[in-house]
Amino acid sequence: MPSRPDTDDPRLGDVSEGRILQAILTRTPAASHTLIGPGDDAAVIATPSGSVVATTDTLVHGPDFRLAWSSGYDLGWKAAAVNLADVAAMGARPTALLVALAVPRELRLSFVERLADGFRDACASLAPGCAVVGGDLTVSDVLTVAVTALGDLEGRVAVTRSGARAGDVIAVAGELGHAARGLAVLFGRFRDGDVPVPVDPAKLASGESAALAAQLRPAPPIGLGAVAATAGATAMMDVSDGLAIDARRMAAASGVTIALDRSLLGDDPERALAGGEDHALLATFPEGTLPPGFRVIGSVRARGEEDLLCDDLPVDLSGWDPYRDWDSVAG
Amino acid sequence: MPSRPDTDDPRLGDVSEGRILQAILTRTPAASHTLIGPGDDAAVIATPSGSVVATTDTLVHGPDFRLAWSSGYDLGWKAAAVNLADVAAMGARPTALLVALAVPRELRLSFVERLADGFRDACASLAPGCAVVGGDLTVSDVLTVAVTALGDLEGRVAVTRSGARAGDVIAVAGELGHAARGLAVLFGRFRDGDVPVPVDPAKLASGESAALAAQLRPAPPIGLGAVAATAGATAMMDVSDGLAIDARRMAAASGVTIALDRSLLGDDPERALAGGEDHALLATFPEGTLPPGFRVIGSVRARGEEDLLCDDLPVDLSGWDPYRDWDSVAG
Repeated sequence: MPSRPDTDDPRLGDVSEGRILQAILTRTPAASHTLIGPGDDAAVIATPSGSVVATTDTLVHGPDFRLAWSSGYDLGWKAAAVNLADVAAMGARPTALLVALAVPRELRLSFVERLADGFRDACASLAPGCAVVGGDLTVSDVLTVAVTALGDLEGRVAVTRSGARAGDVIAVAGELGHAARGLAVLFGRFRDGDVPVPVDPAKLASGESAALAAQLRPAPPIGLGAVAATAGATAMMDVSDGLAIDARRMAAASGVTIALDRSLLGDDPERALAGGEDHALLATFPEGTLPPGFRVIGSVRARGEEDLLCDDLPVDLSGWDPYRDWDSVAG
Repeated sequence: MPSRPDTDDPRLGDVSEGRILQAILTRTPAASHTLIGPGDDAAVIATPSGSVVATTDTLVHGPDFRLAWSSGYDLGWKAAAVNLADVAAMGARPTALLVALAVPRELRLSFVERLADGFRDACASLAPGCAVVGGDLTVSDVLTVAVTALGDLEGRVAVTRSGARAGDVIAVAGELGHAARGLAVLFGRFRDGDVPVPVDPAKLASGESAALAAQLRPAPPIGLGAVAATAGATAMMDVSDGLAIDARRMAAASGVTIALDRSLLGDDPERALAGGEDHALLATFPEGTLPPGFRVIGSVRARGEEDLLCDDLPVDLSGWDPYRDWDSVAG
């Protein structure tokens, strides 16, 4: 829904690649580690530690977002946030993003401008000093945003998901289940049959706006990744597929049993266990070393029969597939 | 066209993400700079120089390749090669690739396996020591391969496209116009109406096989990027959109006029000027410092009326848009 007249907000297929790139680049501040930024064959980013942390994650229209619910700004923000979270989960500080956009020709220029704004603001808010340093623009019938995030360990050792040890506490920083609640609101109330319809803020109950924001513009505690590494976290990962699935992955990788305490999982433990996409940081720490910002949710035990327990019982892992009824034709 | 029975070569929509990733990872050797490889939130790559060169480039089914002409192997090879060329064009040695795949559910597992083989072999052949260190897998109706390449400058200064100076020679390493000839063969002879049909090798004249290989599996001289930087190249870029367009970009960025000599552009100077996708390295050097592997094609002059001359005449820049008649429905 462009708010500008069509002549001033052309379809991407009707303007030059140069104009599109200019619209993006004028919205892209320099990252503080950038030695050479956009405009050459490649970017050059300083890596004072002598290593670089690198991850890539893609959002595809259909499986990963719906344009009826996500603005360009939301999409840029979320694409940044989910990648920043992966860098943070290694104990690193994000330094730079590379953004590969594949866009339909009918998309409006203003959409790409808002997308760039979303990238900029997510970086400024969640990972100051990080920014978009390069990218690529191609045409596709399916809007696709592939992001690579780079980060620096600043001399710390990377925290993998395989280092949890019996006797550690398991803790989390950030929300659990909020993004899932937001998606439930969207699927439950903002569809006309199978077709997503725009969100009417007047129809949102108290608390639902925050849940929607958690789904559309997640704000994981990126800076706490470095804090956890400094404090001596033995294992860390971000919670993208839900606490139950991801804690089980950590337990399996570490060869331990993770025992969660349901009373520490908030108002809605089932949603906290099953809901994905919050990108909270899940980490284990030796007893007595928990840093500020993390809250204990259980403990790590020597490997028993199960990877994961909650109140000493096995946990149902039905999984997180929010778009399982997605119909790509319906939009 | 799977050569295995369907039961052994399932559609991607019918198998777990874990099985697909396993098929890829078993084909992915460790890169020599990898500190932490696939399987965690992010990879960690050594950067001895204290900086990392990073670039991203995406191939989308339709605008960038057609499955009737490109096998999975070809696609993996080309997606690697075009990104490696961007790293090389900065004077860096490629260290690692991250691959974000968006795949249709109907695609066969064997296609992804061949794609991984193509990545592996392109790295081994063009950039030894470099390999895939991470990635992402999502579902999309449009097959999309977004690659990020990382590289290390090994203590050298990055070579941008803006450093060419009057008095330098301009030189190239690698082929010019071969990939365009290959594409002309495909468009001219391997279509049924508008629909691409598989290549029948028996129908290829002498020399056409090499041109097809240049289009489908380009082999730019990646190692010569570092060689050029060491020799003192003042500017460098890879030729992705054709010599005329890219040399003009270099001239504009450097504030000089580049004067090409038609007699040095090979058998078919027009194709060398217009044809893209060879990813040759275009570089300028101070007189007398040309390294082995590069051949002079002209000289750099103080900025005159034109960015680019060929035999002292302005050059037509009609541009490189090989798929301008692409019909995404016809496939």
